[in-house]
Amino acid sequence: MSRFLSLEAQSLAPYTPGEQPQDQSYCKLNTNESPFPPSPAVLRAINRAEIGKLNLYPDPDCSLLLDAAAAVYELKAENIIPGNGSDEILSFAFRAFCGAGKPCAFADVTYGFYRTWAKLYGLDANIIPLREDFTLAVDDYMDFPGTIFIANPNAPTGLALPRSEIQRLLDADPNRVVVVDEAYVDFGAESCVPMLYRYDNLLVVQTLSKSRSLAGARLGFGFGSPALIEDLNRVKYSHNPYNINRLTMASGAAALRDRAYFEACCASVQAAREWTREELEALGASVLPSRANFLFVKLPGIGGHELYARLKEQGVLVRHFSAPRTQDFIRVTVGSMEQMQTFMDAFTRIAEEVG
Amino acid sequence: MSRFLSLEAQSLAPYTPGEQPQDQSYCKLNTNESPFPPSPAVLRAINRAEIGKLNLYPDPDCSLLLDAAAAVYELKAENIIPGNGSDEILSFAFRAFCGAGKPCAFADVTYGFYRTWAKLYGLDANIIPLREDFTLAVDDYMDFPGTIFIANPNAPTGLALPRSEIQRLLDADPNRVVVVDEAYVDFGAESCVPMLYRYDNLLVVQTLSKSRSLAGARLGFGFGSPALIEDLNRVKYSHNPYNINRLTMASGAAALRDRAYFEACCASVQAAREWTREELEALGASVLPSRANFLFVKLPGIGGHELYARLKEQGVLVRHFSAPRTQDFIRVTVGSMEQMQTFMDAFTRIAEEVG
Repeated sequence: MSRFLSLEAQSLAPYTPGEQPQDQSYCKLNTNESPFPPSPAVLRAINRAEIGKLNLYPDPDCSLLLDAAAAVYELKAENIIPGNGSDEILSFAFRAFCGAGKPCAFADVTYGFYRTWAKLYGLDANIIPLREDFTLAVDDYMDFPGTIFIANPNAPTGLALPRSEIQRLLDADPNRVVVVDEAYVDFGAESCVPMLYRYDNLLVVQTLSKSRSLAGARLGFGFGSPALIEDLNRVKYSHNPYNINRLTMASGAAALRDRAYFEACCASVQAAREWTREELEALGASVLPSRANFLFVKLPGIGGHELYARLKEQGVLVRHFSAPRTQDFIRVTVGSMEQMQTFMDAFTRIAEEVG
Repeated sequence: MSRFLSLEAQSLAPYTPGEQPQDQSYCKLNTNESPFPPSPAVLRAINRAEIGKLNLYPDPDCSLLLDAAAAVYELKAENIIPGNGSDEILSFAFRAFCGAGKPCAFADVTYGFYRTWAKLYGLDANIIPLREDFTLAVDDYMDFPGTIFIANPNAPTGLALPRSEIQRLLDADPNRVVVVDEAYVDFGAESCVPMLYRYDNLLVVQTLSKSRSLAGARLGFGFGSPALIEDLNRVKYSHNPYNINRLTMASGAAALRDRAYFEACCASVQAAREWTREELEALGASVLPSRANFLFVKLPGIGGHELYARLKEQGVLVRHFSAPRTQDFIRVTVGSMEQMQTFMDAFTRIAEEVG
């Protein structure tokens, strides 16, 4: 920290991303990436002609990308804002819909970045504990007089709410925004996108980092009423208007259009998830019923950090969260069947030593 | 605007980027892009192998890119932070080094986004008028007790300060940060980068959008002491840690390493600039002595907006700023000699009609 740092910046609580070793020597199951390369359509979209135009600014309105997304999500372009990853959209949402007199609420166990953004904008954050079994009870939010952020499926638990539960929240108070962070929705949960035409207080956030194999391109979307999207654009144009580069725009449009590849990738991850879950339970591990591309796993007789460390010794990288409620667990990304076999081999050795 | 917008977001003053018509039918001299495609090394860097890895997150620390930049700028990696365009770095700098008790100062005629960021962070902004001839007198900032932002060369004037003048500001008060925005420095001005080892209160911001032909890839840098860079990373990790995507990282490293191409592009733009300036003056236009890749031009007998509109009718797009001090001028990006010939043909017709 320099002696020049503002008081506001001193009070920040920066986020710590998962380890990203650059040597690729690990079986890497720690940051919920797709095990599959992007659609071949992305390779075709990033051609010499597209690279040759990099001297020109991208379209700040991202029209071609919005058209592709509108077709896939059955929305209008005015319902969509793209971001440099869904993180950027979430950051804009915290600024647009929270502030003085507009507090925010989210779960105690959820995406850790929500706390960071609340700090970034100096917000009054209401941390509402999940129930004992890690489920989120929407009744706990019914009377909250501010903006609600719900990851659905939730991270790192993988548990999902049905759309009807979100609908109860939206109906309970039409004068507050509910932000549903659907980063992992494509792996088996119900999306709230079909409710967008009925609720102008609903913002849905999605990403192409997981189910569309584009974590390296950085692209996410916010979906909402034209007025909510206009509000988010107000923040975008106050921070960084040219936030989506040309090659990401072309990659995203191509990936969105290749529905068959997307569906095959999602089905493969779900099959690998269910196989892994059964294997883990056969070894005596507890596994939450996940609708995401990761599993939240506890093995009796060993702490989460120890389990993480012993897997790492065997070349398998998973993620551990050290907060009291999550410290007994590890979060394991669901990769390819080959990766999950490697993971299970290592896990089995540990379970045999512990058991 | 929705009924959900926070008070803080209501008070924003979003930036309006230059027109970006997507049909490419104009001779486009309005957003200071390079007329040249990126280095051929960029085409080689964006290969199938690199695109095939887009399913994996980029390195949030950007190590390979920092190494390339460190070699080119003769700094250490710890002196450098990359951003999603230099706009993002400037936004981070406003948050890191300004706030309660730390006001900011900048010129009345300069990059218009400074006002927007000051609003975004609710800052006390001191707008210090340029002198009558559009020069910036550092004496006007000597006693200012906060963070100073100077575009050097300045936009839209193109005028540059010598490094020794910035040094006077740095010496005058070692307890305030001076941010020097060198977006256009490669076209003939003196960079402050060589002073970084002597001044821990200096932050230099550069971009690859202009002289490195990568506006479409979105990449800029902040250069400063390790403590200043740590402060900026504190903001980055509170907003969007994976801010640089894989293909931009590869493009940027390749472009930085191709010094010969970079120098040839800069020399070509400077030659076209001086030719255009002489032609304009021969027609009776006033042209400020520019060290940037644009010219700030006034033609007696016609207002700036009228001049902009009549050039646009002839298919030449330039930029007009409607504030009182700039309304008589247009800002003309210096493109290729062929583009400048097209511009001069159109300008000559207008000058003959007016004169």
